[in-house]
Amino acid sequence: MLGANQYGKSEIRVVKVIRGGERHELRDLTVDVTLRGDFEAVHDGDNTGLPATDTMRNVVYALAAEHPLDSLPDFAAAIVAHWVADDAVTQAQARIRELPWQRLEGNAFQRGAGGTRLHAVTGDAEGTTHEGGLEDLLILRSSGSAFSGFARDRYTTLPETGDRILATVVTARWYYASAPGEGSWAAVRDDLLHAFGDHESASVQQTLKHMGEAVLERHPDIERIALTLPNRHHLPFDVSRFGLENRNEVFHATTEPYGLIEATIERG
Amino acid sequence: MLGANQYGKSEIRVVKVIRGGERHELRDLTVDVTLRGDFEAVHDGDNTGLPATDTMRNVVYALAAEHPLDSLPDFAAAIVAHWVADDAVTQAQARIRELPWQRLEGNAFQRGAGGTRLHAVTGDAEGTTHEGGLEDLLILRSSGSAFSGFARDRYTTLPETGDRILATVVTARWYYASAPGEGSWAAVRDDLLHAFGDHESASVQQTLKHMGEAVLERHPDIERIALTLPNRHHLPFDVSRFGLENRNEVFHATTEPYGLIEATIERG
Amino acid sequence: MLGANQYGKSEIRVVKVIRGGERHELRDLTVDVTLRGDFEAVHDGDNTGLPATDTMRNVVYALAAEHPLDSLPDFAAAIVAHWVADDAVTQAQARIRELPWQRLEGNAFQRGAGGTRLHAVTGDAEGTTHEGGLEDLLILRSSGSAFSGFARDRYTTLPETGDRILATVVTARWYYASAPGEGSWAAVRDDLLHAFGDHESASVQQTLKHMGEAVLERHPDIERIALTLPNRHHLPFDVSRFGLENRNEVFHATTEPYGLIEATIERG
Amino acid sequence: MLGANQYGKSEIRVVKVIRGGERHELRDLTVDVTLRGDFEAVHDGDNTGLPATDTMRNVVYALAAEHPLDSLPDFAAAIVAHWVADDAVTQAQARIRELPWQRLEGNAFQRGAGGTRLHAVTGDAEGTTHEGGLEDLLILRSSGSAFSGFARDRYTTLPETGDRILATVVTARWYYASAPGEGSWAAVRDDLLHAFGDHESASVQQTLKHMGEAVLERHPDIERIALTLPNRHHLPFDVSRFGLENRNEVFHATTEPYGLIEATIERG
Repeated sequence: MLGANQYGKSEIRVVKVIRGGERHELRDLTVDVTLRGDFEAVHDGDNTGLPATDTMRNVVYALAAEHPLDSLPDFAAAIVAHWVADDAVTQAQARIRELPWQRLEGNAFQRGAGGTRLHAVTGDAEGTTHEGGLEDLLILRSSGSAFSGFARDRYTTLPETGDRILATVVTARWYYASAPGEGSWAAVRDDLLHAFGDHESASVQQTLKHMGEAVLERHPDIERIALTLPNRHHLPFDVSRFGLENRNEVFHATTEPYGLIEATIERG
Repeated sequence: MLGANQYGKSEIRVVKVIRGGERHELRDLTVDVTLRGDFEAVHDGDNTGLPATDTMRNVVYALAAEHPLDSLPDFAAAIVAHWVADDAVTQAQARIRELPWQRLEGNAFQRGAGGTRLHAVTGDAEGTTHEGGLEDLLILRSSGSAFSGFARDRYTTLPETGDRILATVVTARWYYASAPGEGSWAAVRDDLLHAFGDHESASVQQTLKHMGEAVLERHPDIERIALTLPNRHHLPFDVSRFGLENRNEVFHATTEPYGLIEATIERG
Repeated sequence: MLGANQYGKSEIRVVKVIRGGERHELRDLTVDVTLRGDFEAVHDGDNTGLPATDTMRNVVYALAAEHPLDSLPDFAAAIVAHWVADDAVTQAQARIRELPWQRLEGNAFQRGAGGTRLHAVTGDAEGTTHEGGLEDLLILRSSGSAFSGFARDRYTTLPETGDRILATVVTARWYYASAPGEGSWAAVRDDLLHAFGDHESASVQQTLKHMGEAVLERHPDIERIALTLPNRHHLPFDVSRFGLENRNEVFHATTEPYGLIEATIERG
Repeated sequence: MLGANQYGKSEIRVVKVIRGGERHELRDLTVDVTLRGDFEAVHDGDNTGLPATDTMRNVVYALAAEHPLDSLPDFAAAIVAHWVADDAVTQAQARIRELPWQRLEGNAFQRGAGGTRLHAVTGDAEGTTHEGGLEDLLILRSSGSAFSGFARDRYTTLPETGDRILATVVTARWYYASAPGEGSWAAVRDDLLHAFGDHESASVQQTLKHMGEAVLERHPDIERIALTLPNRHHLPFDVSRFGLENRNEVFHATTEPYGLIEATIERG
């Protein structure tokens, strides 16, 4: 006998860029939707009247496009209201987790607490070398990033874009000519963060080189810096299929697969 | 100055069902592609001639559709051969990880070592109760699973399918009327695995109920069983865009978002 | 033939409370130590002269006890200097990751960016209920926490302490009588953080109840709050074995096993 | 007002080697213990009569030493029986997860499904090279492993042992002189597994070299192999503190910190 049951869609990753004016607002939400209702026949193979979980995902993106997202309780209630209006549904739940982004400057943002510091020292008979590093620094820009002009062939389906979200998790390693002071790490991090947001970006590669050059210019004791920038893709979610206007505001944040850009910037 | 550099696409999750006859073969691959070449101008903002990492992903799926996948070294070499033929590329690398699936019966498969066993005992003044459990059991069927007849409205974009991959990670909890013997767990697991593969599935809900009923029928000392079945979606990758035939063989395995189906099956 | 080889100890988790005055400083380090040297015979079964990796761990704690830890480059260099002085060692490396803690008030600290916000709405024919929540909030106190007076029997080995580190990762769920405003979450979090640090703690249980009461007192629209507080143990590392004074400054941070304290605080 | 509450110890990692005869049996358990009872005063700062969670951990290890561990339901019930006999406790729960180990040969075991296969191909103008690899292969020996004769100084506290558990997670990379066949990977893995268990081990280093040599001897097309073997420490848990005999049967499995042994074995 069928006892308590429910079903739904979990880990719906929706990011909205609210483009009111010069300064964008950003909301990064992970939504779980769960329904209960008259779904006993479904458990015997009859899907009549069953909302697909794929449809639940679409509804979240559609509502995210329409809702101002100025209140999480209100947005969650809107999702629930949509589903309790369905005759087959007796109970609906929306659970939303919000990942907090802090503004760095302009439309550049940081998530988390600024990354993990790494410092490594290697010693042998010839002396001691110092390496600085930074890991797990999540940063994102919602303006000033394009990607176009790349090669096209029969396997190319990516559209060109003049305005995309650029998001990455910085891993950096830099190599000192001599032992640095305690304050060097924070200064390098600040320079990386500032350089990430201060230019028009034509590609992750260009941004990477620009960030590395900014560090070498301001830190004469650093000989080279290696940067690894995974491209954390934020794909525009096509809400025109639901009769809504695509305004480049609602994105699906995905972790796999991802572009991975790596380079070392060194003194000439 | 730009030093050593490379870029590519990582974590391309491609699953191929090789449909030679009654018994399918299954290969579950995670591919990383990395290119080196004449991309110095890209770091200054000129993307001319740059293969997009999105294109690298497409090539992996296209080659997976064409290649028999009877040899991993050969498939990896085919990916590399594609890219070294590109004038801009001086070095290409394909790194492939294969997750092993073992056949259970027919076209039902299991990954990993059969899940983690859980046993919980709760005691108070009234006595002692026993709960059995199973976690992290990855199973997949490549035939006999459909999903159609569900509700359609303006937000529904999911096509109906009569032949899909059904994959899940079983979490089960069952409750005993009395203390079980040491061998009960393995018998329940075997019954769950067999029931997963022995029927035509119209939905995860139906398969869930069928699995629960199989356990209750064969284990009179179990009073009820709660099952949680996330739907690990395997989405057909559309290779017709590359001039290839879609044969329902090449899938993108994705972890987010996912359908989540939960129910308790109990004695009437 | 033996080619390049090295060995070492990884993930040495050392936390130091620098107790200069009223306000403690805190450094949370994860250290990897790697040695290369004349260890060819070890690979043939002769361990003569081989520093055990367990000894490498001990050296890190001993040096952490002696070093002021005001410079990470300097502390890493001290570890390396210890090992290059060993005749069998030709190269030593210390890699240190620092997890950043921010002061909340007094000697209460927070790691990361203040936790993840959760909001859930459930609706059915009877109406709509709102639940707030907080996850992944790492907090720590380095003063004002004791644990003594607990039961002792033949299985009890834990010493009593009047001054321990209290660290936890807060999971909280609270339930509203009516739909809250957007600002409610941040106010609840601030109240939880302040209550965590504002009292003498005799146990995690007492601190939990105090935190829950603080929320209920200041938020009349919240009916009850459920708190889950794992005890992230910081065990004093005994450096007296190395001829050093134990000053309750150097701790081993461990994640398993852990105490887990759960309770709901509700209106009377 | 204090509502529902409970507390306990989670993630108690106990491994028992049951040494009946030549062939050991192995059980790898993760135990959570939870108590409910008359602990209201504890939430107001009075710990009288409160069992410490550290004591809960000790009880699990003590009972594991005494219990034959031939039935998980019975062992869980024994833990519960211990705690419900405590006057302050009204309800006790033990939840046990078992990680399954499969015997390889003798007293060598494998956990999981035999590791992940890796194959990488790199191509450029000069041709194509093939690299095989293996990851996430958990293996353990419960006999024939010693560690003694290592260096001792003021920082050395590790006792010598003639009979320890040797456990590791193999990461291997090997490099082919020419393109291998599809079957090469499984043969290399089998050779690694067999070599892991077929000798008296004086150190991880010796076992590593022996494993690498076994592969080179049997695979003429492999030029060199790099092995990374973390030492997954299983520390004997001292039950003599509870009046029980230490029989080298009960171990605490810990993941941090860990020894990390790396070397390349190549042709002379």
